[in-house]
Amino acid sequence: MGGPDAFWRTRISEVKPNHIRVRGYDLIELIGARPFGDVVFLLLSGDLPKANEGRMMDALLVAACEHSVVAPSVNAARFVASAGVPLQAAVAAGMTAIGDAHGGAVEAGADMLLEADATGKQPAEAARMVAVRHKEEGERLPGYGHVVHDPDPRGRRLLAVAAELGFAGRFVALARALEDVTPMVFGRKIAMNIDGAMAAILLEIGLDPGLGKALYVIGRAPGLVAHVFEEQSRERPYRDVGWKNVRYEGPGPRTP
Amino acid sequence: MGGPDAFWRTRISEVKPNHIRVRGYDLIELIGARPFGDVVFLLLSGDLPKANEGRMMDALLVAACEHSVVAPSVNAARFVASAGVPLQAAVAAGMTAIGDAHGGAVEAGADMLLEADATGKQPAEAARMVAVRHKEEGERLPGYGHVVHDPDPRGRRLLAVAAELGFAGRFVALARALEDVTPMVFGRKIAMNIDGAMAAILLEIGLDPGLGKALYVIGRAPGLVAHVFEEQSRERPYRDVGWKNVRYEGPGPRTP
Amino acid sequence: MGGPDAFWRTRISEVKPNHIRVRGYDLIELIGARPFGDVVFLLLSGDLPKANEGRMMDALLVAACEHSVVAPSVNAARFVASAGVPLQAAVAAGMTAIGDAHGGAVEAGADMLLEADATGKQPAEAARMVAVRHKEEGERLPGYGHVVHDPDPRGRRLLAVAAELGFAGRFVALARALEDVTPMVFGRKIAMNIDGAMAAILLEIGLDPGLGKALYVIGRAPGLVAHVFEEQSRERPYRDVGWKNVRYEGPGPRTP
Amino acid sequence: MGGPDAFWRTRISEVKPNHIRVRGYDLIELIGARPFGDVVFLLLSGDLPKANEGRMMDALLVAACEHSVVAPSVNAARFVASAGVPLQAAVAAGMTAIGDAHGGAVEAGADMLLEADATGKQPAEAARMVAVRHKEEGERLPGYGHVVHDPDPRGRRLLAVAAELGFAGRFVALARALEDVTPMVFGRKIAMNIDGAMAAILLEIGLDPGLGKALYVIGRAPGLVAHVFEEQSRERPYRDVGWKNVRYEGPGPRTP
Repeated sequence: MGGPDAFWRTRISEVKPNHIRVRGYDLIELIGARPFGDVVFLLLSGDLPKANEGRMMDALLVAACEHSVVAPSVNAARFVASAGVPLQAAVAAGMTAIGDAHGGAVEAGADMLLEADATGKQPAEAARMVAVRHKEEGERLPGYGHVVHDPDPRGRRLLAVAAELGFAGRFVALARALEDVTPMVFGRKIAMNIDGAMAAILLEIGLDPGLGKALYVIGRAPGLVAHVFEEQSRERPYRDVGWKNVRYEGPGPRTP
Repeated sequence: MGGPDAFWRTRISEVKPNHIRVRGYDLIELIGARPFGDVVFLLLSGDLPKANEGRMMDALLVAACEHSVVAPSVNAARFVASAGVPLQAAVAAGMTAIGDAHGGAVEAGADMLLEADATGKQPAEAARMVAVRHKEEGERLPGYGHVVHDPDPRGRRLLAVAAELGFAGRFVALARALEDVTPMVFGRKIAMNIDGAMAAILLEIGLDPGLGKALYVIGRAPGLVAHVFEEQSRERPYRDVGWKNVRYEGPGPRTP
Repeated sequence: MGGPDAFWRTRISEVKPNHIRVRGYDLIELIGARPFGDVVFLLLSGDLPKANEGRMMDALLVAACEHSVVAPSVNAARFVASAGVPLQAAVAAGMTAIGDAHGGAVEAGADMLLEADATGKQPAEAARMVAVRHKEEGERLPGYGHVVHDPDPRGRRLLAVAAELGFAGRFVALARALEDVTPMVFGRKIAMNIDGAMAAILLEIGLDPGLGKALYVIGRAPGLVAHVFEEQSRERPYRDVGWKNVRYEGPGPRTP
Repeated sequence: MGGPDAFWRTRISEVKPNHIRVRGYDLIELIGARPFGDVVFLLLSGDLPKANEGRMMDALLVAACEHSVVAPSVNAARFVASAGVPLQAAVAAGMTAIGDAHGGAVEAGADMLLEADATGKQPAEAARMVAVRHKEEGERLPGYGHVVHDPDPRGRRLLAVAAELGFAGRFVALARALEDVTPMVFGRKIAMNIDGAMAAILLEIGLDPGLGKALYVIGRAPGLVAHVFEEQSRERPYRDVGWKNVRYEGPGPRTP
């Protein structure tokens, strides 16, 4: 199938008439036999879980699944949905908002943990060094602090699940240590949020930091679907903020 | 270039090293010599304007260019922009909202005008027949009435420009007649809006009704760009509606 | 939170500082305790599974997860990914392609099964009536036949899982009956594909047909992520089909 | 309209019943009176052109309008269009691909010109310094060289138009000088492409480098529309690359 110079090539899956293999495994045998978390792990890592990675993935996706209308991705999806577009297009528009400022802290947080790990120091000292660097450069710690929650209960719960499933290794220790040093370095306790916990666990289960946003892209998909469906079945078309609610701050009337 | 069974084929343009032809015309000769409206018309219709179609296109695009934050496409684009994504992706998310309920009346309105035209009647009678059918089937006239404006000044102005440029033909007459019969059929005057005028002019300049949304897709692009740029340069990241402003109407607390 | 006239209202979830409830359930208690399939079902249906709906959902999502580069959504996502855009934006662009001709047969198929069900006839007769109507109107049966597979092994496997989990009810019987009548009505056996099986199971587990595309939007998300990540980590930027591979079929050279 | 703490605020335009002002100008007076290029400039810069900025903008948009199927944005848009989605959604998916590797050189090129300008040196020396730095850091010059054209005729033509319209200032001189030093610094002539010319002209007309992609987002919109419309009116649904044309390079068959 496709010669060495094929325009399309992939290591992910193989499709032939009546046969579909994902990373070498027969997809048909996975259906009904393996939970979605196992298969997500397979797709992202290249292998089926050797231990509890699949259950951990399920927990990560559940943690990411929904956060009401208090997320720009959901607001965007609902505005688009209200304009009379198909479900998948409205979800996609919302998903585009899983940006650097909305879920992006997972990747940045994982990079920070790798930086801490690379110091070769004990967690407390490694965390201190990294936190001080951020402080000195005027940066916040990605994955710490939250606009609504203090602490974010999802972060706490994810770390507890990680401990139960055997993933409370060095990256989790470093992530906890970073929280612990915040009072000393930043003058106040800044609690780990869901993204910070995800960052540590992403590394513990062996995934690439570049897949940080994937946890939201996959996990928040059903939440976005639910909001788009609700918007289209329960609200009137064309969500209108009302011209009276817009403050114009530009130049006054003028002529060419 | 590409044999008869080529996977990719197109009638739009031809690219060869150092040569680009659009619909047969050398793109290089068009740059600086032809206004954008002429070239948009060329791309959409297949030919350069024979008369004032290019100037009419420019007027259509200007009419569509901007309507402040009072449009779901703009709200969506700004939410996405606030989440830390590249300019083009935020614009694209907003553009997805040019849906059936937001700009979609151009295509529906053009179809309605074709229906009126097909009656073979004089405008007044053709308009009456079509309006009555809509009334009887509980449908609104696409391209008539507006949530903010009454009448929508853009519709008025576009028809005036169409008259100046030689495009006040049968479709414009039918569109005007439809407005005129609304008091009799619906019990109140329902003024033509921008979409209704666009629908008539789209047909007058010989474009396919299926290109109705194209006028907004192209014309609103700079407005969306301006809003995304403003959001990213003037507002803080992560536009947050605030959890206190969300009304939860679902089931109360329960346990599995 | 938000008065009766709140601009934002939802029945999906409630966010307050340090508390997140989804459809009334504490999200924190679901993390690590419930598989993703259960929570997807909760988000889409409004309630946690009463029986095996969650396991069935997991199987549906696994079935949808990946089909190599032989799907327009994946091709689109990889082209976009190659252009230097963030992961989530490339996935979203691909997801937009889960359109009427690509996954859309789930919804159309569910509607067809409801039509068959509404006849009140036994499956064989109901299926015959519906198939004949499609034949007479020149329509294909949505969810039957596949461009690569014959039969599509995913459809077969999903129905087997449905039987194991207690969802082989009337809709599954109707779906099977439709396949059975194809030789008589269309002159050749047209096998049920993955979409046809999904359509039947969607109804068996009590979801709205309007959620048909949701199974792909959610289930294919990890496959799209894997392809975007592979494109960006393994291929050169700017996927170029090559100008020699494009066949130009438009007008020859001409001047304005 | 909207108090000082309004959730939505903008300097771009003001909408009140029957009145729309863009940057202070009555939109109605602009329709039919001003070419689209003037209004694009108004939206992006905040003011109507004082000289030939509008004509220059028109030329920039025409230059960007179309490049056949040899652009990832177009390939993506056509794959999405083939899947049965509305025109605007397919265009938006394609537009998302105007990424760092596809049109992104305008912004990067403008930044490079600002760097050259900041040396305070004559163009030849400033260009040499900047080119050497890129060479030493193993970077290519953004806006120079093209995968198909050598030289890119659009770049040449845009600079000629800029000279005609009075925009051949220091940034254009620096851009030309950069091309001139490539033989000496890189060992071969690397010609300025369309993006390099756009970068210089963007600065000459006083726009922000962050608007670099805007020229493609707006200018390529009609090209994308034409391709989506062609795909949906001339090709069969579901563009299929064919499973035989995909090369699978992953692990061989294995079992869990």
